[in-house]
Amino acid sequence: MKPGPKSELAPLLAFGAHPDDIEFGCGGVIAREIQAGRKIHYVICSHGEAGTHGTPKQRTSEAKKAAALLGATIEFTELDGDSHLEIRAAHSIKLASIIRRVRPGIVLAPSLVENQHPDHWRLGQLVRDATRLARYGGLKELRRQPRHIISQLFFYAVTPEAEPRDITPVLMDVSAPEIISKWTTAMNAHASQTGARNYVELQLARARYHGLRAGVSHAIPLFPNEPLVLDGLLHICDKHEK
Amino acid sequence: MKPGPKSELAPLLAFGAHPDDIEFGCGGVIAREIQAGRKIHYVICSHGEAGTHGTPKQRTSEAKKAAALLGATIEFTELDGDSHLEIRAAHSIKLASIIRRVRPGIVLAPSLVENQHPDHWRLGQLVRDATRLARYGGLKELRRQPRHIISQLFFYAVTPEAEPRDITPVLMDVSAPEIISKWTTAMNAHASQTGARNYVELQLARARYHGLRAGVSHAIPLFPNEPLVLDGLLHICDKHEK
Amino acid sequence: MKPGPKSELAPLLAFGAHPDDIEFGCGGVIAREIQAGRKIHYVICSHGEAGTHGTPKQRTSEAKKAAALLGATIEFTELDGDSHLEIRAAHSIKLASIIRRVRPGIVLAPSLVENQHPDHWRLGQLVRDATRLARYGGLKELRRQPRHIISQLFFYAVTPEAEPRDITPVLMDVSAPEIISKWTTAMNAHASQTGARNYVELQLARARYHGLRAGVSHAIPLFPNEPLVLDGLLHICDKHEK
Amino acid sequence: MKPGPKSELAPLLAFGAHPDDIEFGCGGVIAREIQAGRKIHYVICSHGEAGTHGTPKQRTSEAKKAAALLGATIEFTELDGDSHLEIRAAHSIKLASIIRRVRPGIVLAPSLVENQHPDHWRLGQLVRDATRLARYGGLKELRRQPRHIISQLFFYAVTPEAEPRDITPVLMDVSAPEIISKWTTAMNAHASQTGARNYVELQLARARYHGLRAGVSHAIPLFPNEPLVLDGLLHICDKHEK
Amino acid sequence: MKPGPKSELAPLLAFGAHPDDIEFGCGGVIAREIQAGRKIHYVICSHGEAGTHGTPKQRTSEAKKAAALLGATIEFTELDGDSHLEIRAAHSIKLASIIRRVRPGIVLAPSLVENQHPDHWRLGQLVRDATRLARYGGLKELRRQPRHIISQLFFYAVTPEAEPRDITPVLMDVSAPEIISKWTTAMNAHASQTGARNYVELQLARARYHGLRAGVSHAIPLFPNEPLVLDGLLHICDKHEK
Amino acid sequence: MKPGPKSELAPLLAFGAHPDDIEFGCGGVIAREIQAGRKIHYVICSHGEAGTHGTPKQRTSEAKKAAALLGATIEFTELDGDSHLEIRAAHSIKLASIIRRVRPGIVLAPSLVENQHPDHWRLGQLVRDATRLARYGGLKELRRQPRHIISQLFFYAVTPEAEPRDITPVLMDVSAPEIISKWTTAMNAHASQTGARNYVELQLARARYHGLRAGVSHAIPLFPNEPLVLDGLLHICDKHEK
Repeated sequence: MKPGPKSELAPLLAFGAHPDDIEFGCGGVIAREIQAGRKIHYVICSHGEAGTHGTPKQRTSEAKKAAALLGATIEFTELDGDSHLEIRAAHSIKLASIIRRVRPGIVLAPSLVENQHPDHWRLGQLVRDATRLARYGGLKELRRQPRHIISQLFFYAVTPEAEPRDITPVLMDVSAPEIISKWTTAMNAHASQTGARNYVELQLARARYHGLRAGVSHAIPLFPNEPLVLDGLLHICDKHEK
Repeated sequence: MKPGPKSELAPLLAFGAHPDDIEFGCGGVIAREIQAGRKIHYVICSHGEAGTHGTPKQRTSEAKKAAALLGATIEFTELDGDSHLEIRAAHSIKLASIIRRVRPGIVLAPSLVENQHPDHWRLGQLVRDATRLARYGGLKELRRQPRHIISQLFFYAVTPEAEPRDITPVLMDVSAPEIISKWTTAMNAHASQTGARNYVELQLARARYHGLRAGVSHAIPLFPNEPLVLDGLLHICDKHEK
Repeated sequence: MKPGPKSELAPLLAFGAHPDDIEFGCGGVIAREIQAGRKIHYVICSHGEAGTHGTPKQRTSEAKKAAALLGATIEFTELDGDSHLEIRAAHSIKLASIIRRVRPGIVLAPSLVENQHPDHWRLGQLVRDATRLARYGGLKELRRQPRHIISQLFFYAVTPEAEPRDITPVLMDVSAPEIISKWTTAMNAHASQTGARNYVELQLARARYHGLRAGVSHAIPLFPNEPLVLDGLLHICDKHEK
Repeated sequence: MKPGPKSELAPLLAFGAHPDDIEFGCGGVIAREIQAGRKIHYVICSHGEAGTHGTPKQRTSEAKKAAALLGATIEFTELDGDSHLEIRAAHSIKLASIIRRVRPGIVLAPSLVENQHPDHWRLGQLVRDATRLARYGGLKELRRQPRHIISQLFFYAVTPEAEPRDITPVLMDVSAPEIISKWTTAMNAHASQTGARNYVELQLARARYHGLRAGVSHAIPLFPNEPLVLDGLLHICDKHEK
Repeated sequence: MKPGPKSELAPLLAFGAHPDDIEFGCGGVIAREIQAGRKIHYVICSHGEAGTHGTPKQRTSEAKKAAALLGATIEFTELDGDSHLEIRAAHSIKLASIIRRVRPGIVLAPSLVENQHPDHWRLGQLVRDATRLARYGGLKELRRQPRHIISQLFFYAVTPEAEPRDITPVLMDVSAPEIISKWTTAMNAHASQTGARNYVELQLARARYHGLRAGVSHAIPLFPNEPLVLDGLLHICDKHEK
Repeated sequence: MKPGPKSELAPLLAFGAHPDDIEFGCGGVIAREIQAGRKIHYVICSHGEAGTHGTPKQRTSEAKKAAALLGATIEFTELDGDSHLEIRAAHSIKLASIIRRVRPGIVLAPSLVENQHPDHWRLGQLVRDATRLARYGGLKELRRQPRHIISQLFFYAVTPEAEPRDITPVLMDVSAPEIISKWTTAMNAHASQTGARNYVELQLARARYHGLRAGVSHAIPLFPNEPLVLDGLLHICDKHEK
């Protein structure tokens, strides 16, 4: 139960369907975990080529810049392309192979709510399946990589309507000024997206709304795929017990 | 975020409608938290006088023995009597007064599922209201006690059908042999109740079932009244990351 | 598993908040069960004295006539009066005493959906509690009556909005012409109620709607309080297997 | 379908458990409806005497000022007192009598979510029952007042956690600067409440969050008690069709 | 807020998986909207070639006749064929292209409930995705058509079990005799389908059932994909306020 | 209503995604129905080739042995292979063809809960679609086989998390020692799977947990796809009425 030194923390692996999904959906959590000493790796599954604003080249470069600002590493992988994502076993196996390579403790993926950009929930479903396939020993395509079992899959919501109503969230406190500041900077790195509509302000208002519920300044909801398993109530409530 | 020495932990306050509800519903959690150095106090709201087995005197004495075996302190409070509990503002105020006196971090109460013993969910509702009233400064009846804000209210289920379906539980790992053993001993202390139907075996089977979901041997579900607020993903997942 | 002769069937006990609730909500089921040889007893908990149409005297007499037409026995019990019903432990104990006297297998009560006449769901809640209290051996008020355990509690809906959305119903086939005819006659016995609004036609349209779902002509949904327990799939599906 | 002149609009009747609930929960809607020519009447069911800040006298006077600023009329009614509200048939009848007197088209009441201030959801439940009792012709206590049928009951949420998850809301667009300004002024009239915690900013952040979902600047969710009945899709969508 | 002349109303675009789905699922709404001056266009995605009754040729001709009787225009589009529909990005893009061509305010599609004909909910999902893709500026396949944003997507249910339980419907009043008559005539135009089972009577019974809930004679439920956004309570409730 | 001789019972058709799913998920129900004289046929849709333990050859042979021990017949059908299953219309048609050949009354398939092995819920969805396609007369691929309408589709859960929360289950009593014994033997026939993790003990603990809810020793939940249709309350409750 005693956490080891920081270098032992398993990395966090975050999946995004488009170059800006991770920053807009849960960038504050990324900033917080990096501050806590965790290694973070992004897998982005398109170059945002169907978006109204920004060329694929611009958006790729913005994503790299945002990840670098936060301190995360990043890679791109090709599935079906922006707005063309389909549920295919081959995709899940491809993502499972990445999981076996990175060997994360925590995985983040877009939520499964279907009333949002179709790439978001489909990627969420593919990632969930991938976390299972990463465990199965007999999968021919993955035989050269040792099996891997993650600790927990959390879903994040890119927009308010993507927040599931049937999972009780955990609210991640991102109120510290340096976290808000890092997050804001990272969102602003997606310059092609922040012109037309003020997405940055929108995400901060959303974090403020959830902060209200949490009794803190700003919070980001994460939605656990499985019930959390705790071996005691010590850590979870310490913050409040003062 | 760094937990202080154990003596600083705010106490845990557990409410039961009948003398055996806490042990049968979440005794393993009690055993685990006491092992972790937390002070635990029980408030029992009847003497079980409507039950089919055991006299009020026997049951009171069994409850005291069970609490002592686990290391918890215990008190009894009178509301309307076994199987006669009603929702009254005066009851919530009475329970709020206890909360202001004990000043707990965590509070445990029976779940709100209405398809169970009517005293259970009514007590759960009274306790939830009481945790709010404990915060309100203008309540005449409570003016002599300073306001108190708890950290988190968790609901426990005395029986399978009392497990809420609309709250994602946290699964408390109670697999350690000494915890199972302490819990079993405490349940057996309610000797008048364990004759007719094998309640002890039933609760262990239920913990086994939830252990299946948690990937551990035995687990007890707790149902948070509010989303958990975390300031990082460090502690919650460490156990799994090995 | 083999049903005994008809005379051995435990009686069915149906509760209504107002004189016409049982007929309008599930009269077709009553007709069908009486045809099958089951004894049925009604307990009506007001004389409908707050209704817009009909005097208490008229309504009492209509209820007696309707019950007689179907072949059920009937009694009235006083709780708080029409539109004044409150949740009180004393009421549940009173109803539990009736359950111990009648010793039913099946109990019917109005559904728990709160967006309907306030007497309906409150009576449903009181009856559910009463079915539990009937089992508890230590209840002082009931000590002279032996404990009783019912087989199943089903809820019925008096109106469409009273149909619960979170319980999978069983659909009772009431398509046989003689059942529809008996049910219609019994509803029409509530003559003071059928003038202003065509309640009879409304209930038949509702049964037609549920018949659509069941693949039969007319059906009435009942909502089990507990999952049905079956010892085989034999009987449940025979009708469809032809 | 053609709306008559404004003077014909049935009044809107808003219920609040405490002097500031209506302004904080749905003040922007009040401002908007008054601008549209509707008469609004408030019924406040306590003087906020259990609150941490402000005396009953102060809070009464603040409520009157806030109502006047928006253009609403106001009355206070005594039920059980702040933080003491219970579900009693007599309360519903008292509120039904007010409904028969005011004869509103639309009624607003706090939501039924039970995890909030206990007075809020209990008042919501009492008001819902009252809207039904107002229709029943035989209720002795109300016989001197003619029956009244309202058009629709909407629930409002005083805090984020009071927003029901099982009703699809309608989102009321309150983005117009003069509406936001009026609403803000009315909230600030509750001066005793706005010191300790910045409730005004909180409500504006919540309206911003819901504005995100609605594609407008600010919106307030209302939760209809019954499905809306429309006789065409004309009006509901016009705003968007430009 | 003031509606312009009728000719300015954006058209309504209705999708059906089979030639008769729109008439059976929401023909009364179509009749009502055409009466109100709205242009309606149907897109039918198969020729019903897997149905038990009727040839594709017959069914195509029946659909054209039904649309003409109501005053709607109609086109057929090929996806995977009756009972063979799959979720493919290419299908959504094809439907999005139709949306950009027709430029509707309101879109109707079959509901997403999965326990119904598999083509129904899959088409519903494809249409929902298509309404999003119609907005994205970078989609190569659609670049020659200007982006289009619809006002609202409503789902209709072809059968009772296709009515979603997790969306609060709006109930469309279709009680006017000329609407019922037009709707009935249009359903009867699908002569190959109305022989074996009396689908027309079934739909009228369903509308009667929902009329009960709405306090009118007949109503058809529509299920909004997004919360309705209103800029006032004026229009929505006027009908009831008399 | 009177069941005919046993030989007339329509067969039960059970689908499994992997060689051991049926035994682990609902083997006790199979044992019980065979004892009652029903013919049971298994369709297994992979050879378990992606599992961590056991070769496809071993697992095929274990499945045959388990089926033989229970008295069921078995066949294997190829879809996309273990962990590669996708939703394709061609698969549903293939399964519908099997349904038309076997002509079952009851069909069993894995549940639709998506947070489990991806093959499980996809097969559940394919089977549900197949039961519909089996009824449609115009499907070219199936024209040589007469249409078939099943009585009821029940879903079973292979693991606790696969139990749907939104369907009220029926609890199948499998407490008889000879049933438990047959079930245990059949699970143990999957020898390659029972080494690493004690799956047999897990399923018995799960059945014990559900037995608690049912008031019997062991029970297995089945989740009906459609509301059960009953023509009386006679059979369903007899067991309890003693």
